[in-house]
Amino acid sequence: MADFVITTFDWVPETPRGYVRDIRLRWALEEAGLPYRVEGTPFADRRDAHFSRQPFGQVPWLTHGDTSIFESGAILLYLAERSAALMPPDPAGRNNVIEWLFAGLNSVEMASVPWSIFKFSGDDEETPGRSNLNAFLASRLHHMEQVLAEREWLAGDFSVADIVMVDALRLVDRFGELAPHKASRDYIARGTARPAFRKAHADQMAFYEAADARRDA
Amino acid sequence: MADFVITTFDWVPETPRGYVRDIRLRWALEEAGLPYRVEGTPFADRRDAHFSRQPFGQVPWLTHGDTSIFESGAILLYLAERSAALMPPDPAGRNNVIEWLFAGLNSVEMASVPWSIFKFSGDDEETPGRSNLNAFLASRLHHMEQVLAEREWLAGDFSVADIVMVDALRLVDRFGELAPHKASRDYIARGTARPAFRKAHADQMAFYEAADARRDA
Repeated sequence: MADFVITTFDWVPETPRGYVRDIRLRWALEEAGLPYRVEGTPFADRRDAHFSRQPFGQVPWLTHGDTSIFESGAILLYLAERSAALMPPDPAGRNNVIEWLFAGLNSVEMASVPWSIFKFSGDDEETPGRSNLNAFLASRLHHMEQVLAEREWLAGDFSVADIVMVDALRLVDRFGELAPHKASRDYIARGTARPAFRKAHADQMAFYEAADARRDA
Repeated sequence: MADFVITTFDWVPETPRGYVRDIRLRWALEEAGLPYRVEGTPFADRRDAHFSRQPFGQVPWLTHGDTSIFESGAILLYLAERSAALMPPDPAGRNNVIEWLFAGLNSVEMASVPWSIFKFSGDDEETPGRSNLNAFLASRLHHMEQVLAEREWLAGDFSVADIVMVDALRLVDRFGELAPHKASRDYIARGTARPAFRKAHADQMAFYEAADARRDA
């Protein structure tokens, strides 16, 4: 089997470090024990070669032999179909993982990422729309807390759905918003204690420290 | 093959009509020519039976024999795996549809749905966070316009990815935000002119008109 190649930005500012989307792919590949390497694409100067792989100028994308895929959700599904450590192959187990994979992205992250844009902007002004956005996130977090109070992982054993959900909730927790949600915080702690996450996170941080060193040289 | 059953809210206010997420499932099932029926779950009083099917208290969910799935993205993928009218079965074509399915949900709709929360709230106050949210959407729309200027459908022939993207852009267009983006407006026009969309939309509108009639009786 050909190696998997993750392409991510060759450098990013301090704020997103530890949260760049390639961490989900690194984490999945570590869980699966699949061979991979990581390459950089310019952060500052995004050219046609980048847009031809990722039409929004974002990262990551994955190459695997002749295959090139963008969207971390699509890539995680692609990897999950190649490792029982990420998704069980039986139809019922597979459906359950896939619905929770989409739930992490579309029910939780669709609220949390826009909310984080306001938090990163230092903007806490409670306009009518902002109140409704906050309520949207609060509802999602409330329901996730109910779910996580009753299970260790989202869909049976640990799966690719947990990679997305833990990473999505980790961003919310960064701003202290999970203080009242103990089951969610415990779930993040379980996920981030896994050796595969720890290695993925350390490797992403080291990747950008090396980029700093090159810029300073 | 068992019939597919879509469960959606038994009634909704005027504003979301024509945009309730079940429209994506109706549309896909019409394109595929698969047999289905639509059932209602209470909008006003969401109980345990609802949360056991959809943990966020949202709609739709799909039942198909012994299978019950939530998240419209996951359901669309489930349907696409059962119809070449929604996704080609070859690996390269399938990957291409899946990456664009996730792109509609996670690159476009992750910006457009939160933005629409502000629009529906009548909130146009340009706070720092709002400016960044608007810029997030504007970037996604700009890149989609580049893509749609060069192709009829996102991934070869019409696919489930177009169902999501057309429906996502349709919401943006509702607020006039696509005025400068002709290729995107033409793409929406192509999608919504399809007989399967027209039937799905008319059926959803009729479903809620029948609900009004029951409430008035």
